[in-house]
Amino acid sequence: MNLILLAPEDLHAPHLARVRDPRRLRHLKEVHRAAPGDELTLGVLGGGIGRGRLLSLEAEEARFEVDTLDQAPPPALDIELVLALPRPRMLARSLEHVTALGVKRLTLLHTRRVEKSYWQSPELRPEKIHEHLILGLEQARDTRLPEIELATRFKPFVEDLLPGRLAARRGLVAHPGMEQACPRGLTEPALLVVGPEGGLIPYEVEQLQAAGCEGIHLGERILRVETAVVALLARLG
Amino acid sequence: MNLILLAPEDLHAPHLARVRDPRRLRHLKEVHRAAPGDELTLGVLGGGIGRGRLLSLEAEEARFEVDTLDQAPPPALDIELVLALPRPRMLARSLEHVTALGVKRLTLLHTRRVEKSYWQSPELRPEKIHEHLILGLEQARDTRLPEIELATRFKPFVEDLLPGRLAARRGLVAHPGMEQACPRGLTEPALLVVGPEGGLIPYEVEQLQAAGCEGIHLGERILRVETAVVALLARLG
Repeated sequence: MNLILLAPEDLHAPHLARVRDPRRLRHLKEVHRAAPGDELTLGVLGGGIGRGRLLSLEAEEARFEVDTLDQAPPPALDIELVLALPRPRMLARSLEHVTALGVKRLTLLHTRRVEKSYWQSPELRPEKIHEHLILGLEQARDTRLPEIELATRFKPFVEDLLPGRLAARRGLVAHPGMEQACPRGLTEPALLVVGPEGGLIPYEVEQLQAAGCEGIHLGERILRVETAVVALLARLG
Repeated sequence: MNLILLAPEDLHAPHLARVRDPRRLRHLKEVHRAAPGDELTLGVLGGGIGRGRLLSLEAEEARFEVDTLDQAPPPALDIELVLALPRPRMLARSLEHVTALGVKRLTLLHTRRVEKSYWQSPELRPEKIHEHLILGLEQARDTRLPEIELATRFKPFVEDLLPGRLAARRGLVAHPGMEQACPRGLTEPALLVVGPEGGLIPYEVEQLQAAGCEGIHLGERILRVETAVVALLARLG
């Protein structure tokens, strides 16, 4: 938690914030070992960031005197990610990685090799997803939540929605054995598709290419989805 | 397990391999759903890779007929990594990420903000480390284990060992706020230093710079060590 991220309802007066949830209180005590008078970085969800002084830290509430939260959060990464739904634990970590890296739109997609049961996982409940996104924002000192979409059917997404999304973005699909190495340091907006642990099937790669995605690869090494997503975003970004 | 990685003692005749450990047997059954006659990619630790046919898959043993294992594993990443010892669970995952990405030399370093108790973690036992390295190799279809060194004292490592290691490598230390952005696509051998979750202290950054490391940053976003390591290696590599 490199940033105390306030919900708008945590702000009780122009310069007073109250933090009452157990997770943040515990973090302030155990990780920050914060004491009244300490200066910390604060931000408001969807808004700016700035400094605040801890006024009091009790069992059930921390109170901050807040400066003007008028600094911009770090710039977003202008890459939309379309990710085949990973298994629940990997989903949780991937949401944090991707949010910390600055992705602002993430579509979780069904593909042939996504186990159907993953769509029933409690990790997909909105409040669980929200939790991981908040952790990613706090890590990277960001305030702007990514939008998350669930695309539970491959064909309608790729045929009906994807072409429109690629009207003003460069489409890329990462898949082992593609001809083009992953480009470095894109200067244009992009949309990146990453398959599931067992890979996309050839039909899916063809459909994605037909919808306007260029096939790219990261070399001979097959990476776990979690590793591959970070490596691809870091190289493209 | 994109590669069935054989220890030399698993090879019982020029073309016969026997796999007897429960982890790999379970993986063959549950993930590969392998059946006799199936062709799989095999490799021998420290050696080549090739194809093999599953002859039998019993409760206690899988037998393979092995072709000549004469293909080279994927090229190594010529970046040595010096990583402040992460907390145990993050260490486990980082070992897998880093091995999968092709790092062949990893030094785990003590720094001020590494909790001393981490050095007592069971995750640091040679057999536990070995386990994670093997998982990383199997993932990336590699056969060559990285060397792992433990540097439990910062000063002797940085003053006595590091300058020699940098004689023929470009030294880099990743730290927020450094002047230079992380370079892309290095063509020379490198050594990368990454600090712990709470960061390096200014004295440590100075010492690393004095030993020959250039300070680099990954932008305004503060990333978890695990994310940062993958992002840095992907951008440099």
